[in-house]
Amino acid sequence: MSSHALIVGAGSGISAAMARALLAEGWNVALASRSIEGKTIEGTGAATRHVCDATKAGDVAALFTALEESGRTPDFVLFNASARLRGPFLDLDPKAVEQSLIVSAYAGFLVAQEAARRMVQKGQGAIFFTGASASVKGYAQSAPFAMGKFALRGMAQSLAREFQPKGIHVAHFIIDGLVASPAHPADPTRPDAMLDPDAIAAAYLSVLKQPRSAWTHEADLRPWAEAF
Amino acid sequence: MSSHALIVGAGSGISAAMARALLAEGWNVALASRSIEGKTIEGTGAATRHVCDATKAGDVAALFTALEESGRTPDFVLFNASARLRGPFLDLDPKAVEQSLIVSAYAGFLVAQEAARRMVQKGQGAIFFTGASASVKGYAQSAPFAMGKFALRGMAQSLAREFQPKGIHVAHFIIDGLVASPAHPADPTRPDAMLDPDAIAAAYLSVLKQPRSAWTHEADLRPWAEAF
Amino acid sequence: MSSHALIVGAGSGISAAMARALLAEGWNVALASRSIEGKTIEGTGAATRHVCDATKAGDVAALFTALEESGRTPDFVLFNASARLRGPFLDLDPKAVEQSLIVSAYAGFLVAQEAARRMVQKGQGAIFFTGASASVKGYAQSAPFAMGKFALRGMAQSLAREFQPKGIHVAHFIIDGLVASPAHPADPTRPDAMLDPDAIAAAYLSVLKQPRSAWTHEADLRPWAEAF
Amino acid sequence: MSSHALIVGAGSGISAAMARALLAEGWNVALASRSIEGKTIEGTGAATRHVCDATKAGDVAALFTALEESGRTPDFVLFNASARLRGPFLDLDPKAVEQSLIVSAYAGFLVAQEAARRMVQKGQGAIFFTGASASVKGYAQSAPFAMGKFALRGMAQSLAREFQPKGIHVAHFIIDGLVASPAHPADPTRPDAMLDPDAIAAAYLSVLKQPRSAWTHEADLRPWAEAF
Repeated sequence: MSSHALIVGAGSGISAAMARALLAEGWNVALASRSIEGKTIEGTGAATRHVCDATKAGDVAALFTALEESGRTPDFVLFNASARLRGPFLDLDPKAVEQSLIVSAYAGFLVAQEAARRMVQKGQGAIFFTGASASVKGYAQSAPFAMGKFALRGMAQSLAREFQPKGIHVAHFIIDGLVASPAHPADPTRPDAMLDPDAIAAAYLSVLKQPRSAWTHEADLRPWAEAF
Repeated sequence: MSSHALIVGAGSGISAAMARALLAEGWNVALASRSIEGKTIEGTGAATRHVCDATKAGDVAALFTALEESGRTPDFVLFNASARLRGPFLDLDPKAVEQSLIVSAYAGFLVAQEAARRMVQKGQGAIFFTGASASVKGYAQSAPFAMGKFALRGMAQSLAREFQPKGIHVAHFIIDGLVASPAHPADPTRPDAMLDPDAIAAAYLSVLKQPRSAWTHEADLRPWAEAF
Repeated sequence: MSSHALIVGAGSGISAAMARALLAEGWNVALASRSIEGKTIEGTGAATRHVCDATKAGDVAALFTALEESGRTPDFVLFNASARLRGPFLDLDPKAVEQSLIVSAYAGFLVAQEAARRMVQKGQGAIFFTGASASVKGYAQSAPFAMGKFALRGMAQSLAREFQPKGIHVAHFIIDGLVASPAHPADPTRPDAMLDPDAIAAAYLSVLKQPRSAWTHEADLRPWAEAF
Repeated sequence: MSSHALIVGAGSGISAAMARALLAEGWNVALASRSIEGKTIEGTGAATRHVCDATKAGDVAALFTALEESGRTPDFVLFNASARLRGPFLDLDPKAVEQSLIVSAYAGFLVAQEAARRMVQKGQGAIFFTGASASVKGYAQSAPFAMGKFALRGMAQSLAREFQPKGIHVAHFIIDGLVASPAHPADPTRPDAMLDPDAIAAAYLSVLKQPRSAWTHEADLRPWAEAF
């Protein structure tokens, strides 16, 4: 019997790499994002795609219900969405700041709540969150991203303390560096100086496979050459 | 010439104590909150009161404009509002979680932006934020409070890194313990086991008076008997 | 061509498990400790054993020279020694406190310096450190252990910042919970409530295999049921 | 009746400033360091001077006994000594690294133990520690300083958790920036860009005066213009 994964905030970087890694190990994978229609994500053809605005409670509930009704209740959920809003503090548009907090943190809550609701019935499952350098350090001219990522990390800690004793593994990853993607490819003259999404996916997968006697709640990942 | 303070999220605890401390030192004090009308706050009679829903950009802008037009542009702003929403994660109402994030963090952004906009013109000023144990640790059954308080702390760090070099002192306080208030008075059999709001205000005031060669960005405050 | 590992502070718990995990993957493994002679460590028969007091610069240098001269310069070094001295602060014997700091932190420096000296010539290698809850939180009645573990963590960060850009992976693990061992076996009525050393070793091994585009510098590991 | 202070690691910077601040408020002040004889420390003429190698248990015990016998048992102790050993990791002399750990951390233990032993009998007192940026971040080419300062911070946390409930205030300060001194005077073209020791002393003094219902355990201090 195979296991079911759901990746929310599905783009061409970490999400696609994680989908490929899971598919290669025999998982069923569902990819969800607001604008997934028409997108081609390399190597993820075997994954199902689901249009879902993760900032809307109704959309998130409908996604989980649809997966449940088709016998695909997720055993593993990766929340990967975020809004990287930056800029001089005085130039920030309040509406955009509010929306960035909703995307980076509140959507994570909605997804985690639907996921945990189902996992707690089985007494097992895993919910992972993708963080950033901004999860632990508020940089100048980057307040909204810090707000969203700090909030997500606080929620991940609360979740871990409430649900790990109920058998649900909660992990938060601090991705500290630029992630290579088709839009932002690695510089061939500086090998491995950007995070390879497949390497990130491999790290997530090894944490996902941890037995419950030794769970990682938080790990950082950065390129060898990154100053930190 | 006296200085002007604005305290947002004005209740009967830390806000009232800070108002009293500032008034005693000759400051003009403005108290703002959504429901300040009809409230009696001991010892703050000399402060002006302003109805303001700090979660609304228009309300916050109007408050600062009104203060500015009456020659009371704040030299010091304390953001003190928060929504202490708690409970089992699966029982949380999404709308209430969203609102708690808006109150604890987004309102802080709105207030800080209006404050910094004016202070940066003078090349001086101070913006302080009240945090909690939940600012640095996500407790079980307390996800929304952790989300809001983590987010506020991330923003305070961003602000400090952007505005301290422009002469604006940004400080964040981790209040680790229960604060005594008329509604939750201290237990006389356990002296000083709850935070005295006047002692918190004295700590804020001493940080406010720091010369710019040695500014505190973050300090914790807890009762002597508190386990931590 | 096989790779060479050195584990310092070799006991029957994490060190033995890591030795078994490395041996199973074809590594040559050297185990070093002050009192390794006569010790039987299950499943590590294929590892060589080296008497070394890691608190003595001469001993550590001699160990690395001996390994080098026999063509076994380590590609991977795990520093695992520590002195878990605890007790009421006023009862602590100063000599024992000094010695605990020397064992937990200074010995780690000695081992890391000899290891890095050789790895930097090859432009690759990995140095891992075993930390504890006490690496990030100083508990009451546990000052010496906190001193040693905090110090080791500070050194690991310095090492990472200096040597990761030279190709050497430096990782620090926060082991948060009790580790099962022959002396302290797991409670069969509370399954997986203690850290299984083989699970810890599996986590170390997966970090050791990370490509340099996505290195973990710090990860925690704790049992599912552990309060934290 | 006046109060008694002891400052260990007495140089011309923070220690001298703290001595002046305490003297100005009527405290009796004792200054102790290994090489205090013959030193002129501006404005501290009213303080007594005590030769003490704080890395020697016997010296530290003798100092406290001498103070006790002359009716000057300290109500407040500031531990200010440290060894700022830096350099490329591979060039560090092991003996010097060991000694730096002993000065920065072990000496702090010795002083704290003698101080706490006497304060616990009165059920009051305060023990403060001077930390640095290196207390919370291990920089490249600065491993020994990070080791010592991390260790001191871990001990301060343990002390706080054990002794604050016994009435002893334990505080740790993260001094993040260069401190101006006669040897390293401030640059007049960049006003307040270095920490003024008198401003640091004022901050310490305000924490020392905190009532026990709201004690700061940790605060940072940095110049307005400092990047962090």
